[in-house]
Amino acid sequence: MRFYVPKDQISEKQLQIRGTELHHILNVLRLRAGDSITALDGSGGIYEVVISSISKHGNPPFAIGEIKSKSQTIRRDIETALFQGLPKYDKMDLVIQKATELGIDYIIPTLCQNTIPELDSDRSDKRVKRWRQIAIEASKQSQRAFLPVVGEIVSFDKAIEESNGDVKIIFLPPSPVYMTRDLRDLLSQKVRKIDIFIGPEGDFSKEEIDKSLDKGLNPVSLGSNILRTETAAIAAAAIILFLSGNL
Amino acid sequence: MRFYVPKDQISEKQLQIRGTELHHILNVLRLRAGDSITALDGSGGIYEVVISSISKHGNPPFAIGEIKSKSQTIRRDIETALFQGLPKYDKMDLVIQKATELGIDYIIPTLCQNTIPELDSDRSDKRVKRWRQIAIEASKQSQRAFLPVVGEIVSFDKAIEESNGDVKIIFLPPSPVYMTRDLRDLLSQKVRKIDIFIGPEGDFSKEEIDKSLDKGLNPVSLGSNILRTETAAIAAAAIILFLSGNL
Repeated sequence: MRFYVPKDQISEKQLQIRGTELHHILNVLRLRAGDSITALDGSGGIYEVVISSISKHGNPPFAIGEIKSKSQTIRRDIETALFQGLPKYDKMDLVIQKATELGIDYIIPTLCQNTIPELDSDRSDKRVKRWRQIAIEASKQSQRAFLPVVGEIVSFDKAIEESNGDVKIIFLPPSPVYMTRDLRDLLSQKVRKIDIFIGPEGDFSKEEIDKSLDKGLNPVSLGSNILRTETAAIAAAAIILFLSGNL
Repeated sequence: MRFYVPKDQISEKQLQIRGTELHHILNVLRLRAGDSITALDGSGGIYEVVISSISKHGNPPFAIGEIKSKSQTIRRDIETALFQGLPKYDKMDLVIQKATELGIDYIIPTLCQNTIPELDSDRSDKRVKRWRQIAIEASKQSQRAFLPVVGEIVSFDKAIEESNGDVKIIFLPPSPVYMTRDLRDLLSQKVRKIDIFIGPEGDFSKEEIDKSLDKGLNPVSLGSNILRTETAAIAAAAIILFLSGNL
């Protein structure tokens, strides 16, 4: 089992473990001073660590680990961002978990016209925090050395404004109105960053589709079956990572 | 909304609706005699139907629909089978739902050495029944005209014995012991049937891997991240259906 320790809790020879990771070490695995663990800093660093002391009654409680060795994973030379039209219920949890496992680098929850409104900013903050925890868990489980960035919730307009991929792909249902592109063609030349847009339940609105085509996003369709939004996200991520040589 | 009506409840001019589909029509959508619905027979037939009578107090209750028109969807010329190493909890539900949406034709729950044993045949029957219901719901939702076949639970030995695809693919974690194949090469020529084997949590055993290689299955790996079994199944199905021109 690997543990996630943010970089600001790591110094040259020691690191400090807190929060849910400490809870897992103490109460689930029942590790003690002298036991060895592997820690990830989420930026490619992998640390072999021996727990040297545990302060259960610190405020907050913490454990200190002595770093015995460190290795650095090289980041691959392609980045992928998933702009996910915010779906209902806990479907976003599944998208975050699966996109993290597959190796997506940025996940940006995107408010679309067909998203059921979520305007309460307190609640939004809690959801983003929860998604980041899911990304940490999925990174540990899949032994990802790089933690994906889960962004704040943004509007669709802001999302297409901020999108800066060499290739921008918007997945749309088949339609006679616009010509869809072939993914193989779009990914046939070397790219550095791929942006992927997936609609929420009820899909993108006509206005959103028009705006995205104006902004140079490439429309792509996945077969004739109607896919649920989370299925489209997972399938699109898998196919694009595969075609670009990253899966 | 579409409804699923098994072929043995369909005659030339009428069809009979029962069970959960009837419940949905009566109690969820509150349809009545005179209302129109679309019915699927799961074998490519799509029927435009007007409800002519409802027998709420029949034993079992049923509704009769008059068939106004029928169209037949042509089956595509490739078939895909997913032999899924039986996972824990309700993860198989997710695999059945997503594989159905994506368009897998056969889903065969496969008992592997690392599957937590489920020997009680009563319970197995119930689970298979439940999975078939999930496949029906996912077919309706994704507007699939062909219902996938969810097979009975089989042993791994029986699964590799019965596998009859032109191309048989077993997904394995990266290993220095066997040479993995490139999916693009395996699917570069025209095939009629593709069999896909995915391991359960804890993956295939060494014995199972040896047996499958003896039987001519092609080992393939998906990237360096460790994927959960259900993520591997969904990603493999998406990539294979895409590469074979079916997504």
